[in-house]
This record gives sequence, structure tokens and C-alpha cells, in this order.
Amino acid sequence: MEATVENEARRKLLHEEVATRIGSLIEQGTYRAGERIPSIRELSRKMHVSINTVMEAYSHLENVGMVEARPQSGYYVRGRLPEPAIKPAKDPAEEELVACCVSLDEIPLRIMRNISDRSLVPLGAGIPNSELLPIDKLNRMLGTESRRFRVQSVSYAGGRGVKRLRVQIAKRALDYGCTVKPEDIVVTSGCVEAVSLALQATCHPGDTVAMASPVYYTFLHSIQWLGLKLLEIPATPREGMNVEILDYALRHTPVHACLLVSNFNNPIGSVMPEEKKRGLVALLAKHDIPLIEDDVYGDLAFGPERPTAVKAYDAKGLVLYCSSFSKTLAPGYRVGWILPGRYDPKVRQLKALFNIASATPTQLAVAEYLTNGGYDHHLRAIRRVYNLQVAKMRDAVGRLFPPGTTVTRPDGGFILWVEMPEGVDGYKLYEEALKKGIGIAPGSLFTMTGDRYRNCIRLNAAFWSERVEQALETVGEMAGRMVGGVA
Amino acid sequence: MEATVENEARRKLLHEEVATRIGSLIEQGTYRAGERIPSIRELSRKMHVSINTVMEAYSHLENVGMVEARPQSGYYVRGRLPEPAIKPAKDPAEEELVACCVSLDEIPLRIMRNISDRSLVPLGAGIPNSELLPIDKLNRMLGTESRRFRVQSVSYAGGRGVKRLRVQIAKRALDYGCTVKPEDIVVTSGCVEAVSLALQATCHPGDTVAMASPVYYTFLHSIQWLGLKLLEIPATPREGMNVEILDYALRHTPVHACLLVSNFNNPIGSVMPEEKKRGLVALLAKHDIPLIEDDVYGDLAFGPERPTAVKAYDAKGLVLYCSSFSKTLAPGYRVGWILPGRYDPKVRQLKALFNIASATPTQLAVAEYLTNGGYDHHLRAIRRVYNLQVAKMRDAVGRLFPPGTTVTRPDGGFILWVEMPEGVDGYKLYEEALKKGIGIAPGSLFTMTGDRYRNCIRLNAAFWSERVEQALETVGEMAGRMVGGVA
Repeated sequence: MEATVENEARRKLLHEEVATRIGSLIEQGTYRAGERIPSIRELSRKMHVSINTVMEAYSHLENVGMVEARPQSGYYVRGRLPEPAIKPAKDPAEEELVACCVSLDEIPLRIMRNISDRSLVPLGAGIPNSELLPIDKLNRMLGTESRRFRVQSVSYAGGRGVKRLRVQIAKRALDYGCTVKPEDIVVTSGCVEAVSLALQATCHPGDTVAMASPVYYTFLHSIQWLGLKLLEIPATPREGMNVEILDYALRHTPVHACLLVSNFNNPIGSVMPEEKKRGLVALLAKHDIPLIEDDVYGDLAFGPERPTAVKAYDAKGLVLYCSSFSKTLAPGYRVGWILPGRYDPKVRQLKALFNIASATPTQLAVAEYLTNGGYDHHLRAIRRVYNLQVAKMRDAVGRLFPPGTTVTRPDGGFILWVEMPEGVDGYKLYEEALKKGIGIAPGSLFTMTGDRYRNCIRLNAAFWSERVEQALETVGEMAGRMVGGVA
Repeated sequence: MEATVENEARRKLLHEEVATRIGSLIEQGTYRAGERIPSIRELSRKMHVSINTVMEAYSHLENVGMVEARPQSGYYVRGRLPEPAIKPAKDPAEEELVACCVSLDEIPLRIMRNISDRSLVPLGAGIPNSELLPIDKLNRMLGTESRRFRVQSVSYAGGRGVKRLRVQIAKRALDYGCTVKPEDIVVTSGCVEAVSLALQATCHPGDTVAMASPVYYTFLHSIQWLGLKLLEIPATPREGMNVEILDYALRHTPVHACLLVSNFNNPIGSVMPEEKKRGLVALLAKHDIPLIEDDVYGDLAFGPERPTAVKAYDAKGLVLYCSSFSKTLAPGYRVGWILPGRYDPKVRQLKALFNIASATPTQLAVAEYLTNGGYDHHLRAIRRVYNLQVAKMRDAVGRLFPPGTTVTRPDGGFILWVEMPEGVDGYKLYEEALKKGIGIAPGSLFTMTGDRYRNCIRLNAAFWSERVEQALETVGEMAGRMVGGVA
């Protein structure tokens, strides 16, 4: 029995490895769109793996939309939509690197409020699909754990949060390259609270925060409320924030903190390459500038390896690492955490001032789930689903949106960034879609630099279904009419 | 069966009424310390109630320390400790009414951190006794409700919080004189978060907040972090904030918000009389100044009537009413609420920015408890216990502390404010007590005006036990040594 499980696990790893290898050959252009990849038999011989393993690997590549099977002929590389460039880096000196006050008027604020309206087709909000969450197990553990720790369950969790939970978080920090003790962690009510505490622990009103552009709109709103200034640094869907341009900016303008969604970035899906992560930490350390890292999508990697945190390279305690279980387990449980590094005393003080502590019972339930609930197994399952759904949505955008549309190709998470031809106005598209009961997030929400993402929208692939596909078709048609032609 | 329950309830009300009447005669001085009150038989005849009812009433008065039974002789009024004056109001013009920046140094910050240390005898922190909370019922409801609302339980609760909970909160708002709809409520992670949101929704850095002195130390800390200035307004244990002095202050110094613990004030136990509440609202309305009302102890009235909220007199939406279930049900559930009045949009925005929403499962459990758990019954039970414990602790302070000590006589809650003779230093007393494993809150924590409460401490009567009494004896002896004599 034991051996069978082990063999099963080994075989799974093997087919994942095969898929990754062939996938990367496609990514790198060794096999181009329309080209035939090796036959199953051929690859099985070359790679010394079973026919079954290759079949599983190919089936996976097919699911994620990288290849297609042609009957009686074999597997072929599918045509792909290009990824959006999002302002390719120019000479930094030519970039408009000016810190600005954030001042959101009524339109974006209204959209931010409406975007999570549950009556809409959920293409807009960045929330996970509750059908993919381990609802019953978690709710059961909520009951058992509150009975097991009956007095603790109704009592304040203490300034850092429930110890059992912090032990589990500390163990899992190894997955993203961090060695931390339970005493290095402060439990928060989700990642948004962690980032909010981090901003307030590092900045004073009037200070400037550097962020990769486009910027997750909630952060824009936070920066406005805290009276901070924003410096938008160009980023690309492949590498994230352009560290060279940040370097240039730091030499020319005062910056007091840097805020980054490091892995499977919201909204552009980027994962900063390891060398860039290392470089970013070194650069900020040189200037003694704190980095607030939001890694809330990190556990949703499609590949076998979860990317490391920028925090993994932090030797000076300058990185405040923020994350939560809201994308993978239960947003309603409000369980997140922060590794505040040298800002630990301030973060703890702020947490105590704001709400003393986060709710105890949901911390106990998540702690138990991490210990005995099969979190890794669950992660593998939802990663596979999100991978598939992201591929399907990318494919649908290619079919349904006007020519010239590009879409990101994230390696994790469930967020897509769509750049449509000039002439499509994301705000107008949002308004029209809203009338049809469809929620999308217009690109202009993600910047303070006016028109930069006017022709962009952010989509959520987590809820992929026929209904979502139909909604996407509707939005695509609307966009098509805006460019004045037929899609 | 039905009739028996009703009779039982009527008899209960009756004995409470008898106790209240005799109690108020004692309060007003009709019966003085040492005097004999009417015999049981006599009062039964006079008030047309049964012997049993009078016996229960007298037993209650005995329990709360107002009378004592002398064998073969009857019931006598007990001697009482005087209440501390806490800076009796002088001519307002003589008060030092200067708004100051709050700047807490390491000592108070360290004490605030240590005060809730669970290894200490809990005389310091303002937390309820978990043995008096309906732990098992709440934890059971946590299980049943999360199963009943399985998807909702793991999902975001929405910007205002769980509707079922808000319906219950709206119903109960009648108890404190407020007529509100579920749509007027924003659920928060406890009362501290509600006050924090209220401060940020009403004030900008540099603004001045007027507060009754002594000030609950967490608010001092919040005001410091938010970069606000504090104007301390004198208050008395009977009437709370001196509204006349506030009136004078408003005419001479700019004030941007007023923050008040209205009922069973922390730390001095005051309940502002109805007329003063009405006057306060009118005064602030004249100046268009928002009032942040913290009513977290309001449900813990010892008498049959719960005091009204200041909010009850608010016609202009200027009062932001804040409360929670942390003192009565479960601090660890982190369920509180705010009625933000005209500041509703700002409060909702801030809540969304800070942590999106509070945890859903604990909101569901509290909603069910309020609907079917017997909250009123529970309240009656813990009010009785706290009443008794407060009386016992007052009595013990009288016996164990040096002559000249005064102590407040709150009509609700479980907090006592003790003023000791000049010469006793609260900070030193705190340090000495800490060495013996006893936690107390030194008076100097509650002000920014230097020495004003140097010879005061705040005590928590919620955990009354032999161990607590012994700890109190130890602290009393320490204080006695500080005045240089024998207690």
C-alpha cells in the first residue's frame, strides 16, 4: 500500500517533469506554433520514461493550451496570443519618474466598491472560486478546534496571534526560501491588513512609495488614505518591476519604501527572476529602504516549484513579507501574516492599536488544516484547475477579442491582464459590461498616470464556466465595436 | 409550566425593584452608614410584597456590599469608602486646557505590552473573566452555523459585515435608545477597531481630539500614532466628562473630534447623566464636531436599566457609536460594530482598505447567539456576578489599602479606579507588584499631563477570587509602605 502511494507520487512527479521540459522548449521557441512535437513513443524512448507518463504529460500540456492533438497525426504547438509589452523599458532617463499624490475621484472609488458585487459575472474581483476551497473540512475543523481549545477560542489570541498557527507558517516559510521562527511572525486579518500595517510601520504622511506599474488598485487607495506619494516604476509581465529603472529612480528622487507583488503579480502575472530578486534586495539595502513584499499568490504556482520570496535574500531585516490564506483556503476566515523583519515592534504596536488581535477560532482552524488537513494535496489540485482555467480563458480572449489584443501568460494565480487595441476604452467597457451584469476591472484603475492602461482590463479566470465564457464573448464583442470594426 | 416561569420572572423583577429602591435610599443618604434598615417583616408589609421577595432583595444588597446582616439584630448600612474626586472642576478658565501632542516614551509602552501578560494576577488589563462567558454555547454555534452557511462561512462577509448579525445589532440598539437599520451598521473587529476607524474617518494628522481625563491608555497610543493632538477635559466618577468645561474649551481652542467612553467609563466608571448627554450632543452639534462614543461596557449595568447611548440624542449623524461583544461574549471572536452616522462612507472605505472585512464565522456564531442563545439571560447573570465582585473588591481596597485611599463605585462594568494618598507612586507600585507576579495599571498611563494620576491605579474586578484578594493585599501593603506608615 505504502509502496503504491510512493510509486504513484513518483510517477506524478515524472510526468510533471516531462511536461515542464517540453513546455520550456515551446516557451523558448525550440518548437514553434504549428510545429509537431515528438510522438509519445519517441519521447518515451528518448527520456527513458513509460508511455503512460508521456501521455499524461502531453495531456497536461493540452489542458493548459500549449499543444493540441490532431487526430492520426500527433501533437502540435498551438498558436499563442502575444503577451502585452506594458510600456517596454526605455532609457530610464526618458521615463516620467515623478512621485505623485494619489487622488482617486468618484469613478474609480465607485468601481472599486462595485467590483465585488456578487450578482455580477465575476470577471472583475481578484477573489478565488469558493467551489475550489476545502470548505467542509475547514468548517469542520472550526468546530472541532474551538471545542478542543474551548477557553482559548473565545480569548484574545495574543499580540502575535495563535502560536500553533505561527509554528505551521514558520515551517512552510521554507517553501519560499525563508527561515523564520514563530516569534518572527505577526498574524493579521488577511494580506491587505498585513500590507496596510507594513505601509504605516515604514512611512509617514508625505513619504514616497515606489511600486511596479500597473498597481493593484487597493494599494492606490491605501496610499491615498495614508497621505503618501506614489512613484510608479515600469514593469513587464515576464520580469515584474524593472530594477534598473528603480535603481535610476532611487538616485534621482527620494523613496521611503517599495511595495511589490512579487510572485504571480496582481495584475500582470509577473514573477521576478531570482537574480532580479537578489539584485532588488541589494539595491534597497544600499539605500536602506524597506521593501513590502505581497506574496499572496505565491502558493498558486502552476509548475512543480513554488517561486521563492524576495524576503529569502534579505539579510538586513528590511523586507516586510506579507501573505495570507485568502486565495488558497478561505478569504472569509481573514487569516494572513507578516514577517516584519526589523519593523517587528512597530508592526506589533500598530496591530494592537487597530484591533488588538485577529479572530482566534479561524486561526485555530487554519492551524489544524495546515497540520492535518492536507494543504499540499489541496494546493496541487487547485493549481491544476487554475492552470487549466487560465489557459482556457487566454484561448477564449484570443478567439473573442478584437485582433491586436494581447494577454498575459502567468505561471500561477488566476489573474489575466488584457491589452486591447487603441480605441478601446476600459472605463466605457466596464460601464457597458456592468449593464449586462458582467464585472470587469478597467486598466485605468491600476495607475495614477492617466491614460497609460486605458485600453486594458484585468480578468479573473478563477470562475471559468460556460457562463463566464459567454460573458467574455459579450465583452469581446463590445471591445470589437469600440475599435470600429468586426472582431 | 408557562405560568410558573412567568411567576418566577415577575418575582425576580420584584425583588430587583425592592433592592433598587432601598439601595437608592442608601445612596441618597436616607439611611446612613451604620444605620439599621427596615426589618424584613416591616418592609414586606409596607411594600405589599412577600417575605421571600424582601429576603432576596436584602441578600442582593448584602452581596453588593451595601448592607450587612448582624445576627439577632437585622440589616445595617455598611460603611463606604469615599469616591475619588479626580480633580474637581474649578473655574474652567483656571483649567489648563491646552491641546498637546501625545508622545509616549518606553515606560508606558512597555507597561501597555505587559499589562495583558497571562502569567500575572490579572488586576491590570481590562479584559472579562472567560469563566463568565458562554464559551461552550458559542463554540458550538461556531460549528453549527459554519456548517449551515457553508460557503458564506469561508467567503468575505461584505463591506458592512454579515447581514444576520447586523439585524440583531439593529434590534438591540433599541436598548440604548437608538433606532437604526442594518444598513446603518458596519461590523468591525472589536470596539478598538471601531474607534480606530472613527478617529481616522473624522480627523487628519495635527487635529485635536477632546477626551475625558483620565483617558483609556490605548486611545492615547492611537492618538500618538495618528499624529493627533489631545485635549484632556476634566471628568468625575459620577458624571463623566465635564460638559461645561468642554463648552469653555470649544470657545477657546480648535477641536476636531471628541472621544468618550460614555457608560461605565474606563477607567473611572462614570455614566454621563441623561441631561448631560443631551447637552453634549447639542453643544457638539453647534460646533459641528463629531463625537466618537465608546459604549463597550454599557451592557454590563448592575441596575435593571441599561443606560442610553449619547448617540440616542444625535439627530445630525455626528455621533459615531462604537461597541463590541468583547466584554460580554468573546473577546477572541473579534466582533464589534460602529454606527458611523454621516461618516458612513469614509468608515466603510477605511474598513475595506485595512482588512476588507472581519472574519465571517465568528460573526455568524454571534448572530445565532443573539437570536437563539439567550443573550439577555446571560447578561443578567454576569451583571449580578460583576456587581458582587466589584462590591467585594471595593470592600477589600477599603480594608487593605492605606488610610486616605478612595475608590470609585461604578454602577456597571468591572473596572475600579483607586486614588491613594500622595506619596504613593503608581509606577513604582506597578514595578513592585510585577516582581510579585501581579499586574496593575498605574494611573500615569491614563494621561499626558504628567503627575495628575501618579498616586492612582486602575483595577479589574472581573477575576475576583482568593488569589486576587491576596494579590490585592500585597499591593495594599506595598502602597502602605510608600506612604511611610502602616496601613
